[in-house]
Amino acid sequence: MQRTNDILPDPAVLREGEQLDDLMNGFYLIQSEANFRFGIDAVLLSDFVRAKKNDRIIDFGCGNGIIPILLAAKTECRDIIGLEIQESSAELAGRSVRFNRLEDRISIVTGDIREAAPIFGAASFDIVVSNPPYMIGSHGLTNPDRTKAIARHEILCTFDELAANAAAILKPRGRLFLVHRPFRLAEIIRTLTNHHLEPKRMRLVYPFVDKEPNMVLIEAVRGGNSRLSVEPPLIVYKEQGVYTDEIVQIYGWNRR
Amino acid sequence: MQRTNDILPDPAVLREGEQLDDLMNGFYLIQSEANFRFGIDAVLLSDFVRAKKNDRIIDFGCGNGIIPILLAAKTECRDIIGLEIQESSAELAGRSVRFNRLEDRISIVTGDIREAAPIFGAASFDIVVSNPPYMIGSHGLTNPDRTKAIARHEILCTFDELAANAAAILKPRGRLFLVHRPFRLAEIIRTLTNHHLEPKRMRLVYPFVDKEPNMVLIEAVRGGNSRLSVEPPLIVYKEQGVYTDEIVQIYGWNRR
Repeated sequence: MQRTNDILPDPAVLREGEQLDDLMNGFYLIQSEANFRFGIDAVLLSDFVRAKKNDRIIDFGCGNGIIPILLAAKTECRDIIGLEIQESSAELAGRSVRFNRLEDRISIVTGDIREAAPIFGAASFDIVVSNPPYMIGSHGLTNPDRTKAIARHEILCTFDELAANAAAILKPRGRLFLVHRPFRLAEIIRTLTNHHLEPKRMRLVYPFVDKEPNMVLIEAVRGGNSRLSVEPPLIVYKEQGVYTDEIVQIYGWNRR
Repeated sequence: MQRTNDILPDPAVLREGEQLDDLMNGFYLIQSEANFRFGIDAVLLSDFVRAKKNDRIIDFGCGNGIIPILLAAKTECRDIIGLEIQESSAELAGRSVRFNRLEDRISIVTGDIREAAPIFGAASFDIVVSNPPYMIGSHGLTNPDRTKAIARHEILCTFDELAANAAAILKPRGRLFLVHRPFRLAEIIRTLTNHHLEPKRMRLVYPFVDKEPNMVLIEAVRGGNSRLSVEPPLIVYKEQGVYTDEIVQIYGWNRR
């Protein structure tokens, strides 16, 4: 995902402090210095999602729109909602959607995850995707920049609220796809099952083959039975600075 | 762990259909064709256990005694109980304990996990270890040989009963060490936390670096807070038929 500021200096697209990133899949993303920038988490989560053509998808907390745009690239889905509470992030996401001419497939909605079911209707989606804040409100340093802090810390929405609203908005057998930190795995599994979201598929992401994992990918099914499929380890680096073949393939760098 | 039937043909030690296995740590184990034989699970679990010198340890369902003997070898603990419901397995375990002259450190007790707290007293152990049956009663084929079936299927004790009795018999902050199958991980985490046994440490065992894990090692703390440390992947084979260095070290084959 290269920076390609030289592609479009059109001020209608890019503003001061913004840049256009080539997602290497035919689409581009506008990112800004002031907003939370996407990381490998969003890329691996989008890759982990399995969606059927007619699935209706919502991304809880879409930020700059990276996940809806990656899902538009990898699926044929035509009804993808990005729900984002922060006006400045939602505005950025909306501009990226228009720049990519994806308005007929992706809608960016400014709103609160905790009101998702009232806004969109209960049991109305096949898939919820979320790359939520990893840190509990009081854990770690709260970013002094509130816009970025909201993306990193559970300031506006706890994991329990996220799970409750995912369960409410999903159809029976609908699926929630998540990326999160392994240190919260026990709590995540317990919270999901409290809301009748049964973890069915899990993959741990290890930066190196001999290191602790730093991400976990989970698929949970609303009303599923208790049987989890744990996938092969996803290893990021073969050696310092050299990505594994799987990561290269996920990012699409092998397509150039 | 080599077979060394030639070491001691003494009929007081070995009976028909039995053999003596060298555990490569100074101790030996009597195994029998009729009883469940230990596998890599018991070896990896024993390696995963962290015990302090004065910890009082109980193995729930010790079978032929492999885990108490491996723990006696790796720790200085002097109060290790092997609890086993099947008389023939307990008898075998007791004979191995005597053969290794470990009677002052290991006691084999014939009894039911579901009565562990009444037998030994509530809150009386620092550590519970268990390599329980992996399969739910109705899952998979029930082994026609009942002795082996009881070791593989939850016929005499469910996982919920095991967790409840581990919680009852552990001191506050006492620790449960388990090996189990990843497909039951969500249920295991939920059941443990239901009994206030908080998963604190977890390691997945992958047969090969690009394959699904087939075992999970878990340490849970009675009354712990919710924060899990997931360890680096434990990979068993480098290539078909060739163990990784870590496995060679755990088995102690590098000591010869």
